Amino acid sequence: MPVVFPRKKANRDGSNLAKWNDAVPSRETQHELKREALFREAAKGFNHRGFHGTSLAELAETLGITKAALYHYVPNKHELLYRCLYHSTEAAFSAVDYGRKNGANGLEKLRLAVKEYFILVLGDNASPSVTLYDAGALDEKSAETIYARRKQTSKDLREFVSEGIEDGSIIPCDPKLVINVILGTMNWTPRWYVSDGEWNEEHVSGEVADMLMRSIAANP
Amino acid sequence: MPVVFPRKKANRDGSNLAKWNDAVPSRETQHELKREALFREAAKGFNHRGFHGTSLAELAETLGITKAALYHYVPNKHELLYRCLYHSTEAAFSAVDYGRKNGANGLEKLRLAVKEYFILVLGDNASPSVTLYDAGALDEKSAETIYARRKQTSKDLREFVSEGIEDGSIIPCDPKLVINVILGTMNWTPRWYVSDGEWNEEHVSGEVADMLMRSIAANP
Repeated sequence: MPVVFPRKKANRDGSNLAKWNDAVPSRETQHELKREALFREAAKGFNHRGFHGTSLAELAETLGITKAALYHYVPNKHELLYRCLYHSTEAAFSAVDYGRKNGANGLEKLRLAVKEYFILVLGDNASPSVTLYDAGALDEKSAETIYARRKQTSKDLREFVSEGIEDGSIIPCDPKLVINVILGTMNWTPRWYVSDGEWNEEHVSGEVADMLMRSIAANP
Repeated sequence: MPVVFPRKKANRDGSNLAKWNDAVPSRETQHELKREALFREAAKGFNHRGFHGTSLAELAETLGITKAALYHYVPNKHELLYRCLYHSTEAAFSAVDYGRKNGANGLEKLRLAVKEYFILVLGDNASPSVTLYDAGALDEKSAETIYARRKQTSKDLREFVSEGIEDGSIIPCDPKLVINVILGTMNWTPRWYVSDGEWNEEHVSGEVADMLMRSIAANP
């Protein structure tokens, strides 16, 4: 996924005129790019070292900035985690939409959703998403928000399975149990996937989605 | 799995004679039973609420004991987590052994190992195992021990896959990627499985193992 540049905002004098022929990004765009870099680095840390294994001081050091500068972009580490978790639920919503719109039957909808999700959350240019976390690292309200959004995705994916059983593309099975396994894989993969390793996200997204679909496909 | 009573130890006076006709467990057995109850409750907490979402004070309250009494059994929460993680690596080692000894081909070895693992770690009487954790919650030496033991299991399971590809029971695939997905499911299942829910561990162990095997079986 390419980096999504934010829509161009008005210049500080209120005009929308380009400066320096847009040879350098605007101040606002630069702010967004820096934020994006911070979130991406944070997501990497949370995914591989966990919440308590990731410190703001280390993040600042990796990004070559001071810890004080980092606070321009996010008030604290809890908020950083929450936003990364929220990103992953947004990715899940888009992925479900994509599957729903483009799949011809239940199995295809599920396959497309799972593959799209991996494409959205894995890799260097992915949305800075976190899937595994310690419940104690979020306040109650934030935890409830994430929980409710995850529950929605679980429900949506179960519906694809039920649809697949009905249209004959999926073997008779327990949609809830099947989706628990599939969601587990969706949550776990960002933990082991490293973008500079032996695989790229296109390959892993396809392989893992295919593997999961084969486990329930009527015609594997 | 039944609770494994520790081997009977000598009485405090050094004798091995039963007291009260063994109508009540010995002092040593009682100590072990209490420890076991503590570990089981802790594992439940860590699996469902995470390290930082689980407090020793709450554990003590659930068990109906004082926090001071709890310190007779374990020096601190980090140690409690470490031992629960260690339990899960022991379960994985036993499960791999079981698969190796009883499977007729690569796929069967893998299926038996995965199913046996779930039987060992799920359910009320299971070994108090924890699989998901925040790396920051362990000291370096403990983290290295757990990491090395997990790596061994990963290697063992990959060998079953390679064997299965060679003997024709498993489709051509990338053993490392496949085992990453399977280990993810092994680690994730204790998070959603609740013993007093709609499923029991026998059912879930079989269903999840079958689902995973179907994804790579030459003849699903």
